[in-house]
Amino acid sequence: MEKAVAEAPKTMSRVPISNRARLTPASPIRKLVHLANRAMETGTHVYRLNIGQPDIESPREFLEGMRAFDQKVVAYEQSQGNEALRVAWSKYTNRSLNLHTVPEQFLITVGASEALVFLFMTFCDPGDEILIFDPTYANFLGFASIAGVNLVPVPSEMENDFALPDRDRIERAITPRTRAILLCNPNNPTGTVYDRADLEFLFGLCEEHNLFFVVDETYREFVYDDLEPLSILHVAPTSDRVMVIDSLSKRFSLCGARIGCLISSNEAVLAALLKILQARLAAPTVEQFAAAYMLERIGDGYLEDMRREFLSRRDTLYQAVKQVPGVEIQKPRGAFYTLIQLPVRDTDHFAAFLLDEFSHGGATTFIAPAAGFYMQNSRGIDKARIAYVLRSAEIEAAVTVLAAGLERYRQQYP
Amino acid sequence: MEKAVAEAPKTMSRVPISNRARLTPASPIRKLVHLANRAMETGTHVYRLNIGQPDIESPREFLEGMRAFDQKVVAYEQSQGNEALRVAWSKYTNRSLNLHTVPEQFLITVGASEALVFLFMTFCDPGDEILIFDPTYANFLGFASIAGVNLVPVPSEMENDFALPDRDRIERAITPRTRAILLCNPNNPTGTVYDRADLEFLFGLCEEHNLFFVVDETYREFVYDDLEPLSILHVAPTSDRVMVIDSLSKRFSLCGARIGCLISSNEAVLAALLKILQARLAAPTVEQFAAAYMLERIGDGYLEDMRREFLSRRDTLYQAVKQVPGVEIQKPRGAFYTLIQLPVRDTDHFAAFLLDEFSHGGATTFIAPAAGFYMQNSRGIDKARIAYVLRSAEIEAAVTVLAAGLERYRQQYP
Repeated sequence: MEKAVAEAPKTMSRVPISNRARLTPASPIRKLVHLANRAMETGTHVYRLNIGQPDIESPREFLEGMRAFDQKVVAYEQSQGNEALRVAWSKYTNRSLNLHTVPEQFLITVGASEALVFLFMTFCDPGDEILIFDPTYANFLGFASIAGVNLVPVPSEMENDFALPDRDRIERAITPRTRAILLCNPNNPTGTVYDRADLEFLFGLCEEHNLFFVVDETYREFVYDDLEPLSILHVAPTSDRVMVIDSLSKRFSLCGARIGCLISSNEAVLAALLKILQARLAAPTVEQFAAAYMLERIGDGYLEDMRREFLSRRDTLYQAVKQVPGVEIQKPRGAFYTLIQLPVRDTDHFAAFLLDEFSHGGATTFIAPAAGFYMQNSRGIDKARIAYVLRSAEIEAAVTVLAAGLERYRQQYP
Repeated sequence: MEKAVAEAPKTMSRVPISNRARLTPASPIRKLVHLANRAMETGTHVYRLNIGQPDIESPREFLEGMRAFDQKVVAYEQSQGNEALRVAWSKYTNRSLNLHTVPEQFLITVGASEALVFLFMTFCDPGDEILIFDPTYANFLGFASIAGVNLVPVPSEMENDFALPDRDRIERAITPRTRAILLCNPNNPTGTVYDRADLEFLFGLCEEHNLFFVVDETYREFVYDDLEPLSILHVAPTSDRVMVIDSLSKRFSLCGARIGCLISSNEAVLAALLKILQARLAAPTVEQFAAAYMLERIGDGYLEDMRREFLSRRDTLYQAVKQVPGVEIQKPRGAFYTLIQLPVRDTDHFAAFLLDEFSHGGATTFIAPAAGFYMQNSRGIDKARIAYVLRSAEIEAAVTVLAAGLERYRQQYP
């Protein structure tokens, strides 16, 4: 079986690559894609629970917006973003969350990814630290590596639904080089939703220790049961230490549009970030145009349907996984991810096995090994992240395949 | 008059921004945009010769491609790029340049900008050096700042049409930390075209000193007089030290599409870069789809017309500027830029004056102060970059405004 890591280069250049490139972690979400592609080539259907790519149709208003683009020249946009998009996004935010943002607080980026990388650069010099809760979104590790920033993990525990660690543990992790606390709320990969008390607690810590508080709210509307969307801007609407990262990728099933933003009222940060945005010129023109067109027109129904659908998928997944012997699952209250714990020694190896050596009724299941979401890798080695981004019937089928694969795996690699 | 630098933030956060953000240079191309916007708001027409944004209509095949996008979900693309685009770009390159690339050599990026930033990270650790010829494309300085790389300038001279410096001067700039020579050919901001002998000379130096040779070929087809497009791949088609940066931005007047690529046959570099590309997930989906659609269909006529048009603009600009007393102009043989030398102490101040205090017949001219293109700033302080991206009649009008502005300026600030 092929090793479950990014393939090593076959020839060595005489000119070496950098240490930071060597040390950039391969994405646990994408590093097995070549095995999935090979499985598909041999006719196996692959249930993709590895990546947060929903199957939900993008809003027709976005596709209409693309067709409505009638400029003769696809010219550079302004570096800070399309003006109509900044206005529309601010209005949308205010309307849906009862907030009072202004367009000048918004800088449009190529997905939330670009916003985070450049924001890290804006307040961290190489070697500065950002505090995160472990497990964390794997790509944060990649962004930190790109920006030369040290992420400092404070562990949270599956047994405890990944609740925030207590004050003492967090404060012990703060050093003179700590510049920020970074939170994803609702959380990827755990599906944990942090409530108002959690946000007030962390914001208070940031005040006390003079840190930025960066909250990635990509999944803000994906909350279930009795929960309502909550932004850090509800807690600290005007604080200059608050940085909101937002994205249209998940909320409107527009992952491929790569439209994200930073929302901040800190003029020094906005001015410094704008210089970096100018260096990279601009985000793509047509997708920004279409995004503005969509936000100006879309009603609330789209998100309500989306939320209802994901709630049902969450329940389906939870019930199905509960019945697989030896597998533990945490019931997530937000986003569309959860972690499961498997009775195997190394989920990297097991996930590769599913793609490379196994199929069940012509299908297999693609899961993301969780070690890549843990900075303390060993803590995730028996876990995997599941993205419940398929229809309920497919989720059930995918879990059936997973259960059968697990049985076979434990015979084959006892 | 407002100071000709990015506006300073009005409030200081108690949480400081990073040194690298403070030290990232403001774009000389974009830092006066707020003055241009203000001039426009007061009804002044602004001739934008500051930025390489041609007024040429984008190919109808691209706009058709956008409308032909019929996927229901705007999903993430593969991190290495849309497969059809890699195939189409490779075929297009082979057909138009008589080369033999394969799609696996292509990694698609968000403009050439992203390719360069990530490539710098791939073979430079912070503090490593890349050798450039001064003046250079200002955004290279921004990319280097983002990547923590030291650009080391070797001066080239206007008096000499910015020819390559001699071997001795280049070799004196090479240190144990030098990782690459970076060349833009044809060159932005000078319009200089480096010929086969130049490329062989620099490639030989890279062989001798074990360096990468990075050639930004964004303007490859913009060559005039008796010149033909020349790629470093004509000189060293299979060398693993050659990195070609390419872009659709200028060649197809698609600056806003943000579609660039790296072409390399170095598997170690491609594999390392792919990890970074995975961390940022993917480039935008629809614009990649449209770019593939276009490259599969477009004929040679589009570029032939473009080249003829820019040749005529080049001649118009050159003749017009020649007649302005006290102004020197270098006759460029490629790209659509040139440097002019002005009888003023500081073109930063003069460029801001044109936008902020001057108009002539209801119009003014926006030029890019050249100091930002010179690492040794003082060498560019009496120069400006002109992008001849408007129709000939507009270029003539813009130069008339410039001449009148110069006269007024020298009275007002003697």
